[in-house]
Amino acid sequence: MNALGKHLLLELRDCNKEGLDDIDFIRINMVTAAIAAGATVMGESFHKFSPQGVSGVVVIAESHLSVHTWPEYAYAAADIFTCGTSVNPRIAADVLIEALRCKSPNLTEVQRGILVAVA
Amino acid sequence: MNALGKHLLLELRDCNKEGLDDIDFIRINMVTAAIAAGATVMGESFHKFSPQGVSGVVVIAESHLSVHTWPEYAYAAADIFTCGTSVNPRIAADVLIEALRCKSPNLTEVQRGILVAVA
Repeated sequence: MNALGKHLLLELRDCNKEGLDDIDFIRINMVTAAIAAGATVMGESFHKFSPQGVSGVVVIAESHLSVHTWPEYAYAAADIFTCGTSVNPRIAADVLIEALRCKSPNLTEVQRGILVAVA
Repeated sequence: MNALGKHLLLELRDCNKEGLDDIDFIRINMVTAAIAAGATVMGESFHKFSPQGVSGVVVIAESHLSVHTWPEYAYAAADIFTCGTSVNPRIAADVLIEALRCKSPNLTEVQRGILVAVA
């Protein structure tokens, strides 16, 4: 029996501040993280805030990735929500942690949805 | 002291199956939920899957809302992630629960990010 969804909550402290405030850098690494995990990208929406910070989501065929950054605190909150067994969300987490040069990552895994039998 | 972000994880069981499979219905109610909560909508991305199911995200100035539906199980996983004090994510949750005619909602609140002083 597996849960329908696997949801990783990433608390990314002590990140590189410049990267956190660069929307193109954040977008590229979020999409790269999704593809590296084996996901199929369906759409995305990213926004830069004034004076600082980036928010963005990548919708994948297997659910979504999201990120919100606070460069002033060298902090980002990221979520990697996947369903099915063909995607490995831990790989996406590793890509983000490395790209943001995060020195203090914390990862919580939450099982989402009802339990269903898997082949 | 407040956390940077407030993250509601909604497990929505026993929902109306037709609503869960209707991308326009899901999109309208996600955007309505965001606005009702006091959020500013910045972008969105929704997708319909075959044979069934909808995924979608609404990026708001105060973070994001996401939803993934499994009509075959009458189930949806929704997330409402907000920052700041001007948005009430519980109102967005109530809008979704009512719209989906969810008979068995479960809500978990997670504090995200570092603690910061508020005025």
